[in-house]
Order: sequence, then structure tokens, then C-alpha cells
Amino acid sequence: MDVAFIGLGQMGKAMAANLLRAGHTLHVWNRSRGAALELEPLGARVAAQPAEAAARAEVLMLMLADDAATRAVLIEQGVLEHLPRGTVCVNLSTVSVAAAQEFSRLAAERGIAYVAAPVFGRPEVAASAKLNIVVAGDAAAVARVRPVLAAVGERIWPMGSAPERANVVKLAGNFMIASALETMGEAAALARAHGVPAQQLLEMLTSTLFAAPVYQGYGRLIAEQRYRPAGFSLTLGSKDVRLALQAGEAAHVPMPFGSVLRDRFLEALATCDPDQDWSSIAELSAQHAGVTAPTAAGDAGG
Amino acid sequence: MDVAFIGLGQMGKAMAANLLRAGHTLHVWNRSRGAALELEPLGARVAAQPAEAAARAEVLMLMLADDAATRAVLIEQGVLEHLPRGTVCVNLSTVSVAAAQEFSRLAAERGIAYVAAPVFGRPEVAASAKLNIVVAGDAAAVARVRPVLAAVGERIWPMGSAPERANVVKLAGNFMIASALETMGEAAALARAHGVPAQQLLEMLTSTLFAAPVYQGYGRLIAEQRYRPAGFSLTLGSKDVRLALQAGEAAHVPMPFGSVLRDRFLEALATCDPDQDWSSIAELSAQHAGVTAPTAAGDAGG
Amino acid sequence: MDVAFIGLGQMGKAMAANLLRAGHTLHVWNRSRGAALELEPLGARVAAQPAEAAARAEVLMLMLADDAATRAVLIEQGVLEHLPRGTVCVNLSTVSVAAAQEFSRLAAERGIAYVAAPVFGRPEVAASAKLNIVVAGDAAAVARVRPVLAAVGERIWPMGSAPERANVVKLAGNFMIASALETMGEAAALARAHGVPAQQLLEMLTSTLFAAPVYQGYGRLIAEQRYRPAGFSLTLGSKDVRLALQAGEAAHVPMPFGSVLRDRFLEALATCDPDQDWSSIAELSAQHAGVTAPTAAGDAGG
Amino acid sequence: MDVAFIGLGQMGKAMAANLLRAGHTLHVWNRSRGAALELEPLGARVAAQPAEAAARAEVLMLMLADDAATRAVLIEQGVLEHLPRGTVCVNLSTVSVAAAQEFSRLAAERGIAYVAAPVFGRPEVAASAKLNIVVAGDAAAVARVRPVLAAVGERIWPMGSAPERANVVKLAGNFMIASALETMGEAAALARAHGVPAQQLLEMLTSTLFAAPVYQGYGRLIAEQRYRPAGFSLTLGSKDVRLALQAGEAAHVPMPFGSVLRDRFLEALATCDPDQDWSSIAELSAQHAGVTAPTAAGDAGG
Repeated sequence: MDVAFIGLGQMGKAMAANLLRAGHTLHVWNRSRGAALELEPLGARVAAQPAEAAARAEVLMLMLADDAATRAVLIEQGVLEHLPRGTVCVNLSTVSVAAAQEFSRLAAERGIAYVAAPVFGRPEVAASAKLNIVVAGDAAAVARVRPVLAAVGERIWPMGSAPERANVVKLAGNFMIASALETMGEAAALARAHGVPAQQLLEMLTSTLFAAPVYQGYGRLIAEQRYRPAGFSLTLGSKDVRLALQAGEAAHVPMPFGSVLRDRFLEALATCDPDQDWSSIAELSAQHAGVTAPTAAGDAGG
Repeated sequence: MDVAFIGLGQMGKAMAANLLRAGHTLHVWNRSRGAALELEPLGARVAAQPAEAAARAEVLMLMLADDAATRAVLIEQGVLEHLPRGTVCVNLSTVSVAAAQEFSRLAAERGIAYVAAPVFGRPEVAASAKLNIVVAGDAAAVARVRPVLAAVGERIWPMGSAPERANVVKLAGNFMIASALETMGEAAALARAHGVPAQQLLEMLTSTLFAAPVYQGYGRLIAEQRYRPAGFSLTLGSKDVRLALQAGEAAHVPMPFGSVLRDRFLEALATCDPDQDWSSIAELSAQHAGVTAPTAAGDAGG
Repeated sequence: MDVAFIGLGQMGKAMAANLLRAGHTLHVWNRSRGAALELEPLGARVAAQPAEAAARAEVLMLMLADDAATRAVLIEQGVLEHLPRGTVCVNLSTVSVAAAQEFSRLAAERGIAYVAAPVFGRPEVAASAKLNIVVAGDAAAVARVRPVLAAVGERIWPMGSAPERANVVKLAGNFMIASALETMGEAAALARAHGVPAQQLLEMLTSTLFAAPVYQGYGRLIAEQRYRPAGFSLTLGSKDVRLALQAGEAAHVPMPFGSVLRDRFLEALATCDPDQDWSSIAELSAQHAGVTAPTAAGDAGG
Repeated sequence: MDVAFIGLGQMGKAMAANLLRAGHTLHVWNRSRGAALELEPLGARVAAQPAEAAARAEVLMLMLADDAATRAVLIEQGVLEHLPRGTVCVNLSTVSVAAAQEFSRLAAERGIAYVAAPVFGRPEVAASAKLNIVVAGDAAAVARVRPVLAAVGERIWPMGSAPERANVVKLAGNFMIASALETMGEAAALARAHGVPAQQLLEMLTSTLFAAPVYQGYGRLIAEQRYRPAGFSLTLGSKDVRLALQAGEAAHVPMPFGSVLRDRFLEALATCDPDQDWSSIAELSAQHAGVTAPTAAGDAGG
């Protein structure tokens, strides 16, 4: 298929490469041209403007940072205007529910089907084409883009025909990850304050009841207080918690854990390096309890 | 070994049966005699009084409801007084950190080694001897009781020589489970309010990032709003959250998620059936958002 | 002075009448013309368009519902464009910090001084010209508008030269009122659950330690569970708490009480009549504790 | 009347002196004898043991630090045992609801009427006999002790016949004060982060809507960050918040503001001097927002 792919950060570049490997024709554009040029040897055609890439596409795929970046490309830089009628716009970005509603409405007005397809997975997962993709949009449009989604992800999770539903699921998922971080932070502070090293606590629990990728991966970072380099920064984590809360606010959903998280991320942004990994909110629990230094493990595990 | 086993609720009875199967000699006692008599055909010797069971033991095992029940048996009913010097007291119950410190001090005064050994696992896990046992106490005493612990659990997690450490880990673990319940409750309310059935959200997330026993088991209950019969009641969940907070309070550890949970359980006790499963705190998120009835799944999953 | 006054709700109408009484020349406009016509007998000149009112003003005064209404008048309806250079724009409305910054920047670009002057006081206080006015903006501009402010308020509280500072103070003040409402709600629920009527509790405390207008006025409403007609609705209260939280978010200020309030107002909007008085969030504390009906006062006060 | 007065801290000593001035006969006892001897010149008779003071009393008045101190005197040191039948025990101390229920039950068993009479007011208020006294207990017993209460307080607030009701009101009141402290802390942090000195904000609000003793007194301490010497320490504040939460817990009353306060006080105890004034919890809001130093007031108040 002829695919326009816009947004070539770590995630986008890995996905674009997989689309090329799967034999699709790719027209790529990125704000900083370097990332686009890296894909040329793999066969990508580098467009000078996003609208130029879009003009030839059967499918447009976006992997952008946020609402503002998506709005800039789709509207201000004329992509939506130049897309051929009948094209499917697949937005892989984590955007707000309100933005998804706005973009899908504007797309519909121009005869474009809008499919929301946010993904779960980190860059290395994207590289091995094992992302989980949450998809919502018109059923026929979703069916048409299945081949391109199959080239970048391991599994597709359909969520119905209203595109913003996929965004709700993505935001709910990121909220759940942030909750797990805070939970481990508080549990680790409780343990440390009683002389149990966080590592001992978390190793036990993440090998048993909490033997899931989120807990094991982040549990290790928290136990080792290793927050650099960030897989996902405090700034991005804070943004996603805010989007989840906004989605809740629009539908009158109180989220007390979400509110605690909001305050945690604000404190982290006010007092820590915002480029640290978002799991570093766990340190705040330790600081507030006066147990910032890891407990010596002398007596541990006798 | 000669083992006195006191406390034959669902968990205790399953563990006692496994000890008998492993060839140990068991002196059993339970407040309501019926449960003890059920073990007689398997070879258990039923004592008339807890002190009588204790009098012949090399190892005393307790599996009681809470601090008060443990204190009643150990102190008021004279068990500690009648235990032969050199016996090891293995407390499998979920008691408070303060109680563990008190019991181990009183035991030490009488020449008894106190080993805290709270367990993770539900009755069916106990029945198949696959419990995870968190153990803390004097190293020599722990070594002596390994054979009996091995008969009831799959894996033993040593946490050092101060007994209360094991209780801290147990309480931190139950706090983490309660946090997962609240997290799923809020995420499900957010999803429902936007037309996404809780089932769709939770199936996706508990098959991928949150593919752990706690999330899968309880996620199903929450998605199906199926809270009876209780595996673990609101009353017990409330108690364990309180014990975790008390342990935090004693060491000056603020736990904002713990505080939200405390208020959730109080509301549940004030307005729901306290014998429901503790995962029913998830319903409060739905009620507060005005989305109590499950969303019709008509459009879902296209 | 020649004053254009835009926005004639309950508050605005009362303030405009006081300006007329003080001898100022008033050009008035309101979205629904009726309110403007009511002021004609007092001498007001009713403009057909907001820009027409603005065109003749030395001072423009705005008393509008929110950011959107202010933006509509100032920008979309061309008021800022038609204001004579050198005019002072006095915004009495409760707008966001971000909006105040935007409006004052746009005003400055056109040679207009922007003075933020949000007010504390309810309609009856406005009618008797006893409002407290929080003022921030260029010192010379503030000095010029003192006579018109003096005609509507009892006291002027200067907050410096950056206009948004006045908005911060207004939002902080409304946050503090909302906190007082929640505090009384929780205290009343605690009292009721122990058989003490809310009235007895609140009468005692608001006659002594908390003998302030906010506690006395709202304490009576809460004790009597009398939430209609609203002096200030749940919808407006929810908006102001959101604006306070947004101001905090922009500056990385965690506000845990603010977060609790956010969730309270969302629950109230999801489950109650949004036009009730905002003090009705106190009822949620009672509901969550299962003490919704007022306690019979039989034994009380013996 | 013959009054036994036990507990001569700052508050108790001031009250005892007022009773002497009013012409009552006082038998006093205090754990550290010095405080008792100071009252001798005023006519107090210093007892060697609390039971000795109690033996001659028509009325026993207690002004002790907490549940434990009250239990020690009443039970362990035999005061309840030695009180003549028909004596009225007036407990002025801030004790828990559970303790009040226990003490009144034990007193009733010995034919003693128990009147709970906790007071609001600081030492200087006690010295001028202007305390507010919240009273609950058997109506006849309350009537009998009115003269002695009138000698120490300005106003008596009857709360019914169940003694613990007075304690509920006292704890609810202290919870409300703590809420006011946190509220001002958050509002001040919000203001500071936007360049408005806390002093400007709080002076405005505590002169108008919040013109009540609690806000004015503590508002000044917070604005000036002046937390020594303590009028009421972090340790005592933390205790009273805990007692309010326990009273809520016993009756299934969720208190989300109370929960935030609990975490605040724990953090303060973990990271600050516990002897500071309890209003210093306001500093945590500033720290978490990264605005610990007071904003220079250069531009302020133009």
C-alpha cells in the first residue's frame, strides 16, 4: 500500500522501518529531516512537506508527540486538506479524547476516515513489531488498514466505531501504569522504613502475585533507584496523567488515585529533573518518609 | 515432627491436611471444634484446649484471624505458657507489625523462638500446597521449621531475622493488591463513562502489560461485577489496609494511595454488604461517576 | 468618567447601578438586552453592540461569566479593536491566570492598559457597593480607575503590577471557600455518625474559632441541608476549583486538598443537580458515611 | 465546692488558679510536683497521690495529655477506686471517643457520673477564664458542675447526655483547624509560585471572608513562616488528627481531607522538628512546589 508516515521519533522510525520491510511504499516526513533521511536506504521516499507526503497516500499514519503536534501537521500544515478523499488517517499518537473527537470530525467533513490506533510498547517492542495496538473507528476503514497495522504490531484490539474509545483505553492503560508506579513507591517506602530493602519486597511480589511486565520492569528500576536514561520521562508521564484526568473530567468521573498521581507528578516536575524516568515518582514516597537512602542490606534475607 | 496447629479456617484446614500428608504428627485445635474433627480421619489428634495441643509440640503453627484472636490463644488461653522451652512458634496469620513485635518479645522471654511466616494465596492455593510464604525470624529457628513450611508452600521468601519484617512484606503486598483493585475500578469507570465496557478494557490490559494473577483474577470479577461469594471480604480487606497504614504511621511513612483506600473501604462498609468481596470497592468509582449500570455492548469491538 | 460596562448579570447590574449613582456616564451592553434596558431609567446608554459601547469609553469594565465569554467580547466581537488607545480595560470577571496573561498581552499590543480586578462578594454585597476588589496592573492605570472601583467596592486590595496576580488571589480565595465547605461537610458527617446534629456542631464552632462570614453563612446552609436556590452553583464552583488547579499546574504546585475538591465536584456533577449551591458537596460526605438523613435531635443539647 | 484537680500543665494550672480565685477549695496533684506547689500560695492543697486528692472531692477535674495519661491516673493510680460515690468526674482533656466511652462506663460501674468537657482555647485564653467548654453527660451531673465550669470558661456548649459526644465535637473542631492550616498552606504556595507573597494573600482573605480567630492567628504564622515556639506542636496536632480519623473509622465515616492531613503530619514528623507549631505543615506545600523561600516583595502591592 501507499502509506504516508509522519512523525519519526524513536517509536515512529521503528514502525516505519517495519512497514518498509513488509513491502509497503512509504512517503515519510519528520520535523527534523535527519530521521527521515535515515529511512531512505530502506526505501522510504522523503517528502519536503507533510502535505506532499499525504498527497499520494492511501493510508496516512501519524506518530506524533501530542495534541499540538498532531494539530500542527493535520491542520496548520494542510495535511488534511491535501489528503485524497477516501484515504484513511490512522493516528497512532497518544492524544486527548477531545482532540480525537475534533480530528475525526474534521476528517469526516473532508471524506476521510479517521482511525484511532494508539499503541502500547516501548521502542524496542516497536522495533520487533510486537506492539499492542488499540483500534477504534469505522469498521470498513479499520478492515482496510489491518495489513499496515499487522506490519507494526503483534496484536490488534478493536474497541468499536467511535475513534476516541481507543484513546480512552490508551489513557486508562497509562493511568494504570502510573498507579502501579506510585503503589510500588509507597510499598517500598513502607518496607524500607521497617528495614526491609525495596529489592527484597519487590522481587518477591513481582515474581508471584504481580508477575506482569509493568511491575517487573519498573519494580527493578525502583528497587535500584535507577531513573536514567528515561524510557518515558516525567514530563510525558505527567502529560498522560493529565489527559486521563481531562477525559474523566469531561465525563464527570472522579479519580482519586488519578488526583494523587497528578500531585505527585507536579511535585516531581517542581523538584526533580523532568527528563528522568517517570518511575522516579516512587522516590517522593521515600523522601516524604525520610528514608531516601537505600537501607543497608546487612541483616536481609538471613 | 510434632506440630501443634491452631486455627482451622479455610486456610488453616488446608495447610493442616498437607502437613498430615507429609507425615507430620499433628495436634490440632480450633475454636469451633467441628473443623478439628474433620481432620481426625487424616490422623490429626484433636486437643480439648489450645494449651493441651501446644504442650507436646516441637513446632507450634498458628493460622488465626487477627491480632485479637492470636493474643487470645497465645496469652489468654495460656499457649505461650505451656509451650516447652525451645519450641518454635510459627505464626502464619496476618497480624500487625506491633503485634508481631509484642508476640516475639513475649516468646523470647519464655525461651521460645518466634518465626513470622504470613502467606500469600487463597484457599485453593493452600489446598495444593502452593502458597508463597514470607518468613522472618532467628536463622536457626527458620532452618528448623523449613520442613513444615515446605509441606504447605511452594516457595519460602526469607526476609531477615526481625520477625515483624515478614509482616511488613505481607501488609505491603495486600496494600498493593488493594491498590490494583482501586486502579481497575477507576480505569473501568473512566472507560464506561466513554462507552467502553469494562470487560473490553480489562481484558486487553490484563492480557498484556498487566498479565499477572492479581489483575487477571480480580479484573474478571470487576468486569462482571461479580462480588459474591467473597474470596476475601470487605471487612478483611479493610482490616489489612488499616494494618498497613498503622505500620506506616509507626514509622512516619505517608501513604496517599493507602489513605484513599482507607476512605474507600470505610465508604464500602458504611453503604454495602461487608461480606462482599473486597474487589467491590471498584463499584464505588462507578457510582461516583454515575455509571453504575454496565454499558450495553452494542457498538463494542466492531 | 465615560465608562463602558459589559456583562450585566446579577453582579454586573448591581455594580453598573452603583456607577450610575456615583455620577459616571455609562455605556452598557449585555448579551440578552433585557438587563441593559433595566438600567436605562437610571441613565445608562444602551449600546447595540459591545464595540459600540467600547468606542466611547475612557474605562471599559467587564463582568463576564468565564474565559470564553470574555474572549468572545474582547476579541471575537471586536471590543479590543475598537477601544480608543489609552483606555483602561478593567476586568472584574473571574478568569483563568492564563487568560489574564493573554488578554493583558493583547491589550498592551493595542496600547490599552489591562487591569485585573476580580471581586469577592455576593449579589447583595455588590448592591450595597461593599465588594472587596483585588486589583493588579500598571500602577498609573490602577490609579486612574480608582474612582470607578471606589464606586462599586468597599475596599481595594492592590496586588502588584502583573495583572494575573489578582486572578491568582481570587482563585486562591475561592479555593479556600471550597475547602471550608468540604471541611464542614466532613466534620458534620463525623458528628452525625456519632449522634451530634450538624447544627449543634457548626453553631458552636462558627460562633467561636470559625466566626467568619464564610463559615457562618455556609455553615447554616449545610446544617439545614438547604441548597436551593443557589447563591453560587455546583457548576460555577467546579469551574473555579478547576481554574485554581490549572494555575497550580502551570507553576507546578501540587494541591492535595484541591484534588479532593476536584473529585468532589465531579461526583456532585455526575450525581446531583448542577444548579444546586456549591455548598451541597457537603452532602457527599454524609452519603459516603451512610448518614444522609439528619439525626433526630431528641437527646441533643440536654 | 471541694474540687480535686489533676493535671497542671500550662492549661491546667491556669484553670486551677481561676477555680481558686472563684472561691473553690482545691486539692491538686500533678506528675511533676513543681506545678502543684506553684498553686499553694493561692490556697491549693497539694496531695501526695492522685487518689488522695480524689478522696475528698465533690468534683474531680482532669486536664491530662491523652488517653494513656488519663487511664494511668483514673485506673492505674486508683483515682476511680477512691472517689466517693456520687462524685462527678469532669474530664477536660482531649481524649479519644473510645476512651471517653470506656471511662464513662467504668465510672458508672462505681456510681460516679462522668462528664466530658473538653475545651477550646490556648493557655492565655485559659488564664483569662474565657475558654469555650463543650459539655456532655448526664443532665443532673452537668447542672451540678456548672459553677466550676463557669469559673474557668466563658461559655458552655451542651452536647447531650452521651459524654463521648463532647469529644466528637472537640475532635471535629481540631480537625477543622488542621484543615484551615493545610488550606492556607496550599493557597500560599499557589500565590508564591505566581509571585504573590503569602502575606499579601492571607492579609486580604483573613481581613474579609476569613476574618476568624483561627485564620488570623495561624495565617500570620504561616505568612511569616514563624513556627517557634509552638503554641501547639506537630506531635499534638498529629495525635488529634489521628483521634478524629479513629472516631470516623469506628463509625465508618470516610474523611478525605482528614486523610490528606494524616499524610501531611506523618511527613512533617518524618522530616521536620516535631516540636514546631502544627501550622508548619503549611511549609510542606511550599516545599513540594519548589517555592520554599519567601518571594521578594519588591513588586508587591503597587
